[in-house]
Amino acid sequence: MKALVLSSGGLDSTTCLALAVQRFGAAEVLALSVFYGQKHQKELQSAKAVAAYYGVAQQTLDLSAVFETSDCSLLQGRAAVPHESYAKQQQAAPNQPVSTYVPFRNGLFIAAAASAAEAARCSYIYYGAHLDDAAGNAYPDCSAAFYRAMNEAIKEGTGGHLKLVAPFIETDKAGVVKQGISLGVPYELTWSCYEGGDKPCGQCGTCRDRLRAFAVNGIKDPLQYEEEHI
Amino acid sequence: MKALVLSSGGLDSTTCLALAVQRFGAAEVLALSVFYGQKHQKELQSAKAVAAYYGVAQQTLDLSAVFETSDCSLLQGRAAVPHESYAKQQQAAPNQPVSTYVPFRNGLFIAAAASAAEAARCSYIYYGAHLDDAAGNAYPDCSAAFYRAMNEAIKEGTGGHLKLVAPFIETDKAGVVKQGISLGVPYELTWSCYEGGDKPCGQCGTCRDRLRAFAVNGIKDPLQYEEEHI
Repeated sequence: MKALVLSSGGLDSTTCLALAVQRFGAAEVLALSVFYGQKHQKELQSAKAVAAYYGVAQQTLDLSAVFETSDCSLLQGRAAVPHESYAKQQQAAPNQPVSTYVPFRNGLFIAAAASAAEAARCSYIYYGAHLDDAAGNAYPDCSAAFYRAMNEAIKEGTGGHLKLVAPFIETDKAGVVKQGISLGVPYELTWSCYEGGDKPCGQCGTCRDRLRAFAVNGIKDPLQYEEEHI
Repeated sequence: MKALVLSSGGLDSTTCLALAVQRFGAAEVLALSVFYGQKHQKELQSAKAVAAYYGVAQQTLDLSAVFETSDCSLLQGRAAVPHESYAKQQQAAPNQPVSTYVPFRNGLFIAAAASAAEAARCSYIYYGAHLDDAAGNAYPDCSAAFYRAMNEAIKEGTGGHLKLVAPFIETDKAGVVKQGISLGVPYELTWSCYEGGDKPCGQCGTCRDRLRAFAVNGIKDPLQYEEEHI
């Protein structure tokens, strides 16, 4: 294997997977997904569907025990996910992570990916964080500064064997969709919504971001939403 | 909670725990241990005994799924652990990690510690890596360069909430023992040996290092070894 891709089943990581498959070929790519105690399984189902579409190996890790004491609203048994944009949530509590921030989740996922990638003799980890994720410190573990430090930690901690690649770290979500469309990414198979309904809710922070990213590109999101939003 | 201590039940992390308890008091310290698929449970038993001795909260995480495809000799069902010093193993394969290197283990453990520490509202993670661990690239994820990069990643990835403290990063193992003796660390409760026998083997890399660290201090290791080595 050449590359391990952190694959959540969402829009960004699926576009990331498409880039890795384009560069290395499906036989050299391993898609890694993580169950971290999230309220629903929709995104993991999407991650499997996407891996099957591209014909890449897929592995799901259960790291939910790490977050047992967290009060993050994405986790089972916690408060409801806010139906507001990130910007509005941040106005209410400036410079604080939003309630959907899973503590150091990307740090943990990338470290687990590095261990799994070393074991599978991969040379690269692909990771789909983009510019909007980190905006206003909503998700500090998505920032470019975090990515650079984590890449350095992986380089040092593996004796230079492994490199972290974040192709969208300087790109906004609309730019990710633009690349994905040109790569033919099957966005109808992906899932972004924080809720686990039959259709995405169209109201939570991540649905709003996704809808805007398609709208900016003048394209209709192929997913059917709970109500019609665009 | 103020501090989370990564506690393996070994000599270094137990000395680290003693330092954290001295600084913050037992009520403010959480000891975190990890099962990663290792061949025996002796060190986890020691980690529990040490936490009970200090009266600190203790949690054990199972992260063994991450290493399922690794061929590291510390893991269940893999080749035997070499009965040679690290130096000899490194002569045979210069600049390669030794067979007891668990891929990016410290990176994974520190990242999991950061997630758990954020959830428990801790401000510090204590981590017992020391100067000898990294010597000759046997364990690249114990080096000072790795520690600095990982500390930066944690700072950036948590919005500055959390700091990684590695009190022995510039100290050799003999220096760790010296500090531990002055702190009254109960070394009779700790376990370092890679084998899971009734007594430590005295022959594997970590037994050899431990015996030397006590010998340099002119002190007898309180553990009884399989054969008499000092």
